[in-house]
Amino acid sequence: MLKGLDELTATIYAPVQSQLSQVEERLRDLPRSNPDHLESLLTYALNSGGKRIRPAITLLASDFYPHDPEKPLVMASAVELLHLATLIHDDTVDNSDLRRGRATISHKWDKHVAVLFGDFLFATSATFVCDTNNVRVIRRFSETIMDLASGELMEYLNAFNIEQAWDLYHDRIHRKTASLFCTAAETGAILGGAPEPQIQALRNYGSNIGMAFQMVDDLLDVQGDSAELGKPVGNDLLQGVLTLPTIMLLERYPKDNPIEALFRDRGEDGKLRQTLDMIKNSGIVAECFEVIREYCDKATRSLDDLPDCDARRSLLALPGYIRERSR
Amino acid sequence: MLKGLDELTATIYAPVQSQLSQVEERLRDLPRSNPDHLESLLTYALNSGGKRIRPAITLLASDFYPHDPEKPLVMASAVELLHLATLIHDDTVDNSDLRRGRATISHKWDKHVAVLFGDFLFATSATFVCDTNNVRVIRRFSETIMDLASGELMEYLNAFNIEQAWDLYHDRIHRKTASLFCTAAETGAILGGAPEPQIQALRNYGSNIGMAFQMVDDLLDVQGDSAELGKPVGNDLLQGVLTLPTIMLLERYPKDNPIEALFRDRGEDGKLRQTLDMIKNSGIVAECFEVIREYCDKATRSLDDLPDCDARRSLLALPGYIRERSR
Repeated sequence: MLKGLDELTATIYAPVQSQLSQVEERLRDLPRSNPDHLESLLTYALNSGGKRIRPAITLLASDFYPHDPEKPLVMASAVELLHLATLIHDDTVDNSDLRRGRATISHKWDKHVAVLFGDFLFATSATFVCDTNNVRVIRRFSETIMDLASGELMEYLNAFNIEQAWDLYHDRIHRKTASLFCTAAETGAILGGAPEPQIQALRNYGSNIGMAFQMVDDLLDVQGDSAELGKPVGNDLLQGVLTLPTIMLLERYPKDNPIEALFRDRGEDGKLRQTLDMIKNSGIVAECFEVIREYCDKATRSLDDLPDCDARRSLLALPGYIRERSR
Repeated sequence: MLKGLDELTATIYAPVQSQLSQVEERLRDLPRSNPDHLESLLTYALNSGGKRIRPAITLLASDFYPHDPEKPLVMASAVELLHLATLIHDDTVDNSDLRRGRATISHKWDKHVAVLFGDFLFATSATFVCDTNNVRVIRRFSETIMDLASGELMEYLNAFNIEQAWDLYHDRIHRKTASLFCTAAETGAILGGAPEPQIQALRNYGSNIGMAFQMVDDLLDVQGDSAELGKPVGNDLLQGVLTLPTIMLLERYPKDNPIEALFRDRGEDGKLRQTLDMIKNSGIVAECFEVIREYCDKATRSLDDLPDCDARRSLLALPGYIRERSR
């Protein structure tokens, strides 16, 4: 399956492949251009793999109109760096030892190093954005860091709270995940010289793609394979985090729901298994795909008025890739 | 003593007192303008007291030439917010329960909340800076966050390492403390419309004042009163952090120095007492004051070519206040 996905991203990323390689190069240059005591941390953090989907969106969103090619490049690098910084703090807060099958910074070094090194990467990403010389873009970037942090905080403060309505869930995942996809697309559009309505269209695209992306992640957590995920199955539930399938399960079976006992007793293994089995046998997965498809459709419809070009075709193909991740 | 200091700051801050009150107001407005789940955290963090010395420097540095008064105001607010954000992460990393006599965020909530809330404040400070609309200033601000984080990381990675030369110490405290004083003054000067040589002069002023400030903090740690400090005496030593007086002590008594045993056995109480007594009886405190005075003199000499005005007189008086803190 992984090979099929790699081929799919290769096709989707094709119009911006050379720019993406330049982004990689700029990230790989960071250990050399920083103080010695940061070298091993930077080298480790920047070789963590990942699909580079956010910088690809920035580059594709910038590729509709004539523009200075340098600016989307630094923006895409900043977007990926910011993403890496958030992962480091998230893993610290979630007590995660593994990410993509590798030890997390908080596990390989310790939590304190992870906090300070995450701060350093946040700030580094912000200095990259300054190279765009565009205050609107810089402001959106800072606001996005606020969203990401407040979304993670919402998740953490609401952990093990079973009473979470849908709007809280949507607000939370928009902040913690969709906001960066939204900003990746919007800033790409701004720096790519798009007219205002097209900027808004690409912003909507990013926002909806981001929601779909998080919901696919939610599904992967309950049905994935831990070796493929690079982290344990059911991790969200063990952290007390409600997700798309688990909120649906709570709605469908409000009485005697195993999640209640799981949250009350914090991680009783039998209840986790029971929850995952119930989701598998309930048809909820298909329903989740329905919701995900709606967000993907909203994303692609946002592009209706944009000119036809390679970048547009790639952005239209991206939802298919995102859905494919969870099959 | 505290009253005398309060009177001193009142005199020094006089030329910018009304702007400083506006900074306070903007900070106090933050809980209202942010999502509900952040309200209690923001209210607690923004009522933590503090002398507001960094925003005062920004405002004073801006007060030499005609300029738009709004920009230094948002900058000063950003500088103070950034300072508060760094304290939250530093307290988390240092396992500190108390700051200025109050429970730290990591103690009152927990470390995970402190990490994410600190991130939120970092980002909020960065959005404040965007209101200056000045990319040079925004870039200096981001670079300063990089310095602060890398300085703290240097301190943490070198903890309990007795082999630290002077240049490592100077580099470390410049990053972790002086960099923000430097940026506070430099950005104030830029936004205050100062010509380039005066910007550099105020930058030097901030840098040297910041070094002196950290060295006074170093002294307070070995000779302060824990009730007045709001944290335990000898805390730096217990954290394995070498400071101005302790590096001097190691230099003067390279053999049988109690710090060696203290670092080896991690916090043996008798050795801490012995170290503090040795510093008291060695004349090292007077030597530290000599070094601090040199930095203060460099700071005031930086202002030689600036026009005489209330702001300049205040900046010239500030070193006296900073030295007075440790008597």
